[in-house]
Amino acid sequence: MGKYSLGIDFGSLSARAIIVDVANGKQMASASSPYAHGVLEEMDGKPLGAGWALQDPADYQQSMIACVKAAVAESGVPAEDIIGIGVDFTACSVLPIKNDGTPISQVAGFETNPHAYVKMWKHHAAQPYADRINALAKARNEAFLQKYDAISSEWLIPKIMQVMAEAPEVYSQMDKFIEAGDWIVMQLTGKDSRNSCAAGYKGQYDPATGYMNKAFLKALDPRLENIEEEKLGKVVPSGTWVGGLNETYAELLGLKAGTGVAAATIDAHAAVPAVGIAAPAQMLMIMGTSTCHMMLHSKEVCFKGLCGVVKDGIIPGFYGYEAGQCAVGDIFQWVIDEIVPKKYFDQAQQAGMDIFAYMSRLAAECEDENLVALDWWNGCRSPLMDGNLKGAISGLTLKTTAVDIFKATVEATAFGTRRIIEAFESSGVAVDRLYACGGIATKNSYMMQVYADITGKAISVAASGEAVAHGSAVFGALAAGKAKGGYDDVAEAIGKMSCGYSGQYLPNAEKQAVYAEKYVKYLAMSDHFSK
Amino acid sequence: MGKYSLGIDFGSLSARAIIVDVANGKQMASASSPYAHGVLEEMDGKPLGAGWALQDPADYQQSMIACVKAAVAESGVPAEDIIGIGVDFTACSVLPIKNDGTPISQVAGFETNPHAYVKMWKHHAAQPYADRINALAKARNEAFLQKYDAISSEWLIPKIMQVMAEAPEVYSQMDKFIEAGDWIVMQLTGKDSRNSCAAGYKGQYDPATGYMNKAFLKALDPRLENIEEEKLGKVVPSGTWVGGLNETYAELLGLKAGTGVAAATIDAHAAVPAVGIAAPAQMLMIMGTSTCHMMLHSKEVCFKGLCGVVKDGIIPGFYGYEAGQCAVGDIFQWVIDEIVPKKYFDQAQQAGMDIFAYMSRLAAECEDENLVALDWWNGCRSPLMDGNLKGAISGLTLKTTAVDIFKATVEATAFGTRRIIEAFESSGVAVDRLYACGGIATKNSYMMQVYADITGKAISVAASGEAVAHGSAVFGALAAGKAKGGYDDVAEAIGKMSCGYSGQYLPNAEKQAVYAEKYVKYLAMSDHFSK
Repeated sequence: MGKYSLGIDFGSLSARAIIVDVANGKQMASASSPYAHGVLEEMDGKPLGAGWALQDPADYQQSMIACVKAAVAESGVPAEDIIGIGVDFTACSVLPIKNDGTPISQVAGFETNPHAYVKMWKHHAAQPYADRINALAKARNEAFLQKYDAISSEWLIPKIMQVMAEAPEVYSQMDKFIEAGDWIVMQLTGKDSRNSCAAGYKGQYDPATGYMNKAFLKALDPRLENIEEEKLGKVVPSGTWVGGLNETYAELLGLKAGTGVAAATIDAHAAVPAVGIAAPAQMLMIMGTSTCHMMLHSKEVCFKGLCGVVKDGIIPGFYGYEAGQCAVGDIFQWVIDEIVPKKYFDQAQQAGMDIFAYMSRLAAECEDENLVALDWWNGCRSPLMDGNLKGAISGLTLKTTAVDIFKATVEATAFGTRRIIEAFESSGVAVDRLYACGGIATKNSYMMQVYADITGKAISVAASGEAVAHGSAVFGALAAGKAKGGYDDVAEAIGKMSCGYSGQYLPNAEKQAVYAEKYVKYLAMSDHFSK
Repeated sequence: MGKYSLGIDFGSLSARAIIVDVANGKQMASASSPYAHGVLEEMDGKPLGAGWALQDPADYQQSMIACVKAAVAESGVPAEDIIGIGVDFTACSVLPIKNDGTPISQVAGFETNPHAYVKMWKHHAAQPYADRINALAKARNEAFLQKYDAISSEWLIPKIMQVMAEAPEVYSQMDKFIEAGDWIVMQLTGKDSRNSCAAGYKGQYDPATGYMNKAFLKALDPRLENIEEEKLGKVVPSGTWVGGLNETYAELLGLKAGTGVAAATIDAHAAVPAVGIAAPAQMLMIMGTSTCHMMLHSKEVCFKGLCGVVKDGIIPGFYGYEAGQCAVGDIFQWVIDEIVPKKYFDQAQQAGMDIFAYMSRLAAECEDENLVALDWWNGCRSPLMDGNLKGAISGLTLKTTAVDIFKATVEATAFGTRRIIEAFESSGVAVDRLYACGGIATKNSYMMQVYADITGKAISVAASGEAVAHGSAVFGALAAGKAKGGYDDVAEAIGKMSCGYSGQYLPNAEKQAVYAEKYVKYLAMSDHFSK
C-alpha cells in the first residue's frame, strides 16, 4: 500500500497540483487550473494605475479545488493514502484579512477597493515606499542591507506602507496582512503561520531582529514598530508541519481531514528539495526568462551580490542563499525577435525545428570565438546589483552572423553564472556541483553544455518539468511525518523523493580552456562598463 | 563655341568616360563599358591561387575605346572642341611591359603566364614580400614608416618582388613595370610618365629619396637598388601635361591628334578636384563600402594614422594626405544582412522604400541614445592602424531594436571620422570644412546629418554621382592649357569646373551636445578594446 503526498503550486496565472509517491518520488498525476480573473487590470470599471498588479484571493480557492480534485482523480490514489500537503506560492503576494481569514476584498463595502485585494509579486506601485526605506536604511547603515543590498518595491514592507498611506480604511479594517501562500495554509488548517522563506526573502525577517528591527521600523513610521505582533505573525520554517487539514477543505478537496499540511514556501525555492539538494555546496539554477541561484549553507556569510540569505529560508536547518541574473532566456528571446534575420527562420522551418533549437544547433557547430558579450540586457542583479547596467557585444566583424551573436549571449549568461559562483566561493561558501531546472535546462542541451564548460562544474538537470510542485510534495511528506508514512528527517525525505535527473553535463577540458580566455575578456569588459 | 574636356575613369570592372564643359563644369554626357574578362579567375584552365586578382590590359583598351566613343557621340560635342584628356585608374594595378608599351601578356610565349598580366589593386598574393619589407623597414626604422605605417601587399614594391621571385622569366623579359593608369597615358601619348599620386601612395615615392631609398632597397634585394632607373620611370605631378594624343588613338577614339593628355591619377583621388577642393583645410570623404579621407596641406607633417602623405599626390603644388576607415557602408550592409529581422523588410515594402532608406528613416526618428558602438568590423585603419581590431556595441537592453543598432553603427562610423579629423587637427593640419561624395553621401541625408552633428562641421555633398571621372576631366582641361581654351592654373580650373553640390548639412547644436557625451564613451571603449 503506497503513500502519497500532494504538492500545490500557485503560479502567476494558475494553480497546479501534483501527486507524488512518498517512497520514490514518482509523479503519479498532475493537473492545473487557471485563475478565473488572472491579473486584475481594472476595478469597478476603472483601470488600475501604472505598476499595479492585483489578484482576487477567491480565484486561488477555486483553482486549488479544481486542480487538486483533477490530479487526485487522475492519479487513482485513494484519499486516505494522501498523507501530506505542501504549498508553494509566488511571493511577495500579500493580502489584508480578518482574524478568521476572510480577505478584506470579501468584506461588505470593500469589494471595489483595490487595496483590499492581493498585491501580486509584480505589483510595483509601492516604489515610493521602497525608495523611502532604502534612503533611511542607507543613512542608518542598517545591517539588513548586507544581506539584501536594496529593498525592492515588490517586497512586504513597501506594500504594507502603501496600504497604510493610500488606503487607511483598509488598514484599519484588516486584522492581518499575510502572504497568499500562508493564507492558503490558513484556509486549509485554520492556523496563521508565516513561512520563513517568504518572511525572510521578501520581509527581511531575521529570528534575531524580526522584520527589520523595531528601531528602524519606528523611524520609518511609528505604526510599523509593532507590525510583527499587530499585523503579521509567528514565523515557522517552510516545509514543517503547521496543522491538519480542516473539515471544510477536506470536503472541498475530497481529502481526509487531519492530513498534515506544511508551512508554505516560495515557488522557486520549492525546486531545491525537488532536485534532491539537502546539503551545502550544491547550487540550483532555476533557468527561465531570468535565472535564480539557490544554495544551502551551515552559516550566515554576507557578501555583495546576494539577493538574500535567510535562516530556514529554503530547507529547515540551513541558511538559504539566493542570487540571480535579471535576464537569461529574455536575452535569447530578444536575439530571436530583434536580431535573427528571416533566412534562419526559413532554414529552421525546412529542418522542422523550432527557431531556438535550430539556432542552438548552429551555435553548437560554430567555431568563432571572437565575440564576447556582457549579459546585462536587463541590468545586473548578482553580483553588481545595478539595474542601470546594459548589455554589450564585442568582437564583431563583417563575417559575424546572428548565430555568433546568439552563441555569445548564451556564453555571456554562463559567464555571469560563473561570476556568481566565484562570489560565493571567494566568501567561503563552496559550490561543488550544479543542478538545473526550468525551461532552458530541460529543453536545451547545447546551453547546458556551455554552462558546464564555462563554470567547469558538472550539471545535473531535473527530470521533472514540474519541479516546483514536486518540491512542495516533498514538504507535504515531511508534514505528514514518519508515523503516518512520511518522513521526520528532511534529508531522508529529499533523498527518497527527488524527481531525478534527465541528464548530466560534464565539462569538456578543451572547451574550458577556450572559455577561460574569454572569461578574462568578460571580466575586463565588466570592469570597463560598470565603472 | 564651348570647349570640353574628357575624363576617363578606370574602375575595377569597367571604364567610364565623361565629357565636361570647361567653362562651368557641366556634365554633357557619360558612358561606361565593362571589361570583357572582368577579374581573371583562372589562366589556361587552371584556377589562380588564393589572393590572386589579375586583369587583361587588352580589356582596358577596348573598354576605353567603347566608352569614349559612346560618350562623345551622346554629348554631340565635335571632336575638335574636346581639348584635353584626363585619366584615373585603380591603384596599385601594375603590369610588365616592353619599352614600346606592349604588355608582356601579349608577347609570344607569355600568353598563359599569370605574372605577365596586370596585378590588380586587390591582388593580395604578394603578402610574403610585404611582410619581408615591413620587417626590414622596422628593423632599420625607415623614415617612410612615419608616412605609411606599414607597406600593404597591394602596393608596388611587394608586387615587383613577387614577379622577381616567382617569375624570373617575366622579370627578364620585361623592360618596364608600370601602373595601368600610366600605361594608358603611354598608349595615348607614346610617353612613359609615372604619376606622382600612384608613385607616392602605392610606391612610397618621395622626390628626395625615390621609391623608398636605395640603401634600403639594396638591403631588401640587390636587384631593387636601381629599380627606379631600370624598370620604373620619371615621376610627374598627376594632372599635369604629359603629351599630345597620338595618331593611333586619335583615330581609335575619334578625337583630334595632339589633344593634351594629363598624367594619370588614382581614381579615388580624382574626386578632390571634382568637388572643388583646391586649397588646404578642406577634407573630402569618399563614402562607400569604406571611407577615404583626402586633404591638401602646404607642408609635410607625419602623424600616426596616415595612409600616406605625398608631394603633388592629389593636386599639383600641395602635399596630399590620405586617411581611411576600413568599413563604413560594409557595416550598414552587415546590419541589413545579418541583423535586421523580417518585420522591417515587410514594413519597408509596404512603405515602398528600399530597406536602407526605411531603416534610416526609423533611425532618424529614434530617440534612444543608450547604444554606443565601435566601428571596427573590418579593423581600424586610421588612426590606430590595426587590422585585428573588431567592432563592439554597448548599451543593449531588452528594448533595443535593430533600428537602434543600425543607428549606433552609423554614429560609430561618424565618431571614427571625428577621431580622424582630430588626429589631423592635433598635428596642426586644420580641417575647417567637409566635403562628401560616393553612394552614401549622395543617397542618405540621415547619415550625412549625423556626420555633421558628430563632427560639428558643415558638409557639402558633391552633386555628381560620377565625381571621379569628373575630376579627371578637370585634369584634362589643365593638360590642355589656357592657350587651347583650358587652364594653366589648377585652382582656377577646379574653381570653374567643380561639379557643384547637391546638398549642405549644418551641425545642429542640440544634437552636437548629445553626441559629444557619446563620443567620450566611444573613446573610452576604443581605449578598452585596443589595449
